[in-house]
This record gives sequence, C-alpha cells and structure tokens, in this order.
Amino acid sequence: MTVCDLDHIVLLGDSITQGGWEPHGFGQRLAAVYARRLDVINRGLSGYNTRWIIPVFEQTKGNEGEHDHPKIRLLTIWFGANDAVFPQFVQHVPLDEYAANLRTLINMVRSPDSAWYEPHTKIVLITPPPVNVPQWSTRPDVEPGTPIDRDLAVTEKYAESVREVGKSEGVVVCDVFAPLWEAAGKKEEGLAKFMYDGLHLNADGYTIVYEALIKTIKDNMPELHYENLQPAFAPWDEVDPANLDKSLVKRKLF
Amino acid sequence: MTVCDLDHIVLLGDSITQGGWEPHGFGQRLAAVYARRLDVINRGLSGYNTRWIIPVFEQTKGNEGEHDHPKIRLLTIWFGANDAVFPQFVQHVPLDEYAANLRTLINMVRSPDSAWYEPHTKIVLITPPPVNVPQWSTRPDVEPGTPIDRDLAVTEKYAESVREVGKSEGVVVCDVFAPLWEAAGKKEEGLAKFMYDGLHLNADGYTIVYEALIKTIKDNMPELHYENLQPAFAPWDEVDPANLDKSLVKRKLF
Repeated sequence: MTVCDLDHIVLLGDSITQGGWEPHGFGQRLAAVYARRLDVINRGLSGYNTRWIIPVFEQTKGNEGEHDHPKIRLLTIWFGANDAVFPQFVQHVPLDEYAANLRTLINMVRSPDSAWYEPHTKIVLITPPPVNVPQWSTRPDVEPGTPIDRDLAVTEKYAESVREVGKSEGVVVCDVFAPLWEAAGKKEEGLAKFMYDGLHLNADGYTIVYEALIKTIKDNMPELHYENLQPAFAPWDEVDPANLDKSLVKRKLF
Repeated sequence: MTVCDLDHIVLLGDSITQGGWEPHGFGQRLAAVYARRLDVINRGLSGYNTRWIIPVFEQTKGNEGEHDHPKIRLLTIWFGANDAVFPQFVQHVPLDEYAANLRTLINMVRSPDSAWYEPHTKIVLITPPPVNVPQWSTRPDVEPGTPIDRDLAVTEKYAESVREVGKSEGVVVCDVFAPLWEAAGKKEEGLAKFMYDGLHLNADGYTIVYEALIKTIKDNMPELHYENLQPAFAPWDEVDPANLDKSLVKRKLF
C-alpha cells in the first residue's frame, strides 16, 4: 500500500530522465506543481536505450484485476541520447530499430491486445536534446584519448525519427531538440549554457524541457494540466472542523 | 499499474513536507539519491495537523490480498507546525491530543490488528522546526494587523512531545528542532538563514533536515540507507548484450 493512492505521471527514459530529480530538473518541477494531484514516478535508467528498456518494461505487472489501483495518466518516453552513439559502442541502436522500438513501447500501452494495455494513459514522446561534442569530449571525468562516441548530426536524425514516429502513430511529440538548438543560437558551443557536460542538461536546459512539456500538455491534453486538476484533499482553509470527516473525503480527480 | 513497481518512501506531513519537492527540498534530495531503488511519495498537505491527517490516512486502502504490491519501507511523520498554533485558530490541536494522534498514526501501521498493518514499514517521527515569529509576522503576504498565531516556546513543547512519543512508543525520532536551533545560534533571528518566511524552510534549512534524516536512517535502519540498496535494474555498463533479458532482470531489493 501507499498512503492514499494517487494516479501517476511516469517518466521513462535514460540518464536525462533520471537526472530530472536534480534541483530544477523536469521531474522535480513536475512533482512540485502536481503535488496532491498526481505522483511523479521517475523510471529514468542512466545509460539505457530503447532496446534495453523493452525487457525492463515487460517486467511491469499488467492491469488485469487491478481496476482499483493507480493508473498512469501521463507517460513520457524520452530516449535517443544513447541509441545515437556510433555503431561500435554497446549502447548503439540503429535508427530503424530505434523507431521500431518506440512503436513497440507505444503499442504495449495502447494496444487492447497488450498485457500492459492502459486506456487511461496519454503518451508524450520527447526528442533527444542536441549534443555539444567539444564540451562532452573534454568533460572532467573523461580519460585522455577516449574516442568520440556521438555527434550532433546523428543525434539530430534520432530527434527527427521521434517526430516521424509521433506523426505516423498519432502520438503527441514534445520537441526539445528544436528549442534547445534555437536557444543555443544554432551553434554547438551555444549549448554549453544548457548542459553541464555537453550531453546532460543543467537547470537552464531543464527549464526549456519543462516549459516545452507543460505547453505540450496544455495544448494536447489540457485535462491533465495541473491547473485543471483539483487537489485530492481539500485546501486547509476549506476544511470544516464541524464536518471534519466529510470535508476530508478524497476527491475524484478523473 | 506503474512501470516496474518499486517500494516506497512516504513523506506524511504538512506544508513543510509538501515543500520538500522544491529544489533542494528533502523530498527532491531523497528522490535523487534513491532513484532506481525506492520511489518517494510526498503526502505533505499544506496547513494540515495531526487531527486532520487521521481521516485522510483512514482512506488508504489496506494491504489485504496485496502481497504483490509496493510496500512502504520508510514512513516519515512530520507534524506540529500547525498543531502548535494558538487555541483560537482552527488548526490548533492541544498538546495531549497531538501526542495521542501521533500514537494513533504509529499504531495504524504497526498494530497487527490494524487494517493498515504494514510490518515492512520503518517509521521515523520528525520534530517540528523552530519558528521565527518576527520574520513570520512580517512576511510579504500578511495583512497588517493580523494577530500572531504561534510562537517559539509553544512550538518547542510540540517538538519535545515528539521526542517523548518516540521514546515511549519505541519509534525512531529525527530531531530537526535541535540542529536548526543550534545552527541559528540559539537566537530566533538566527533562524532567518534557514527559512524564507519564518515558518517554511529554504534550501539551507532543508539541508539540515535532509542530513539529519539520512543520519537517522544510517544509524537506526542502515538496510534502508541508499548506499546499501542496489539499483533495481543493472547499471548500463553491466548490461550484457549477449544475455540481454537475463542481465535486465529486476533485482530483489529486500
């Protein structure tokens, strides 16, 4: 059990999702604004790609007989940063398999035949951010002589693939590549303002992601915007001491 | 469903718990260090007291037949900031009822007869922090002429009551009143460094709380310290591409 179940926002992804729990990360910000409404569950697995996340996801218990349990109301799927490493590196996933894996993840949730079918879940695909290779290659913990494992042009193809999958599958896309690239003045070195090592976002980078995601929610699934969800329990100044039990009844959010 | 259930840390409390989701808040920090190990669920309800949280908690679904579902491994209970307002204010809970309510909450989880019995849960009681009344009375959003609703000496009695309940019930206490008061140089105005309005903690205040809580865990329930919990899924550089499914099997943390 947990204390008074709320439904979930699940953040599925790699290190850039896992790092969303850092101060000013997109997970921390979502948790703060959705407090008392939805619980944010971070399933960011540093270093993972779309090939590895499928066997992970398959270990999720399905919904059968669980009508009473928390539902995923919003699922963000944010991969590509590792899939896009060059083919000689273990995390690499070819572009066509990457797109196929995203489709598999989508259909695990969306297909009525799936063991993980969840008709209440809205999905948002997020594009990988651009990378700043000069910054990434000179990060403090890199060994001298380490080969370069990724570049901007390849990562951009993975971002474009997310846009295409979203379009062909009818799934909402939150494009973070484009606004980060724009904010960087369309120059690789301009990305240094938004990343602490050329790959992972800092607070400024997560601000762009968070704002893009909230706008995506507002434009495409406004019923899930935090301003449109009442708190599950009454604000304290609406609690009636003369009718305590009644005024503290958990509210139905959906 | 959620994606691959993890067990929970549940933070039960008032606005000082709810605000734990802010950057550098104790919830944000716990979520970051427990990532891939335990999910942090914030049940901080701004303005609530121990009298109001009991009917809330009673709406929790019990564990019967749910052996397969997430367990609360750690439950923090952190009230008193509102209970300690003066008797003419609606949030006030008398000191003896406050202690009784804490005992009720403890026994809801700990008593085998309770519908919410959860033998896997370790409980930590947290003392309310000291208050800085001159700062609280002059916060920007306070109307001129608003009566003072709390003071340091009364809040200290509520903190002392938590220590007593912990001792008599055999429940671990994380004392945050004492180290905050110490850090403030034992002067009310010294608290301004740790609070943004005299009642609610800022990043420096939450640092003291977070460090006190982690030390409490380390000293009293070291099996729950994040360093003693392996991640539920393998670190990426331990994933074996030749044995993908096997190396991605979810690990048993307990």
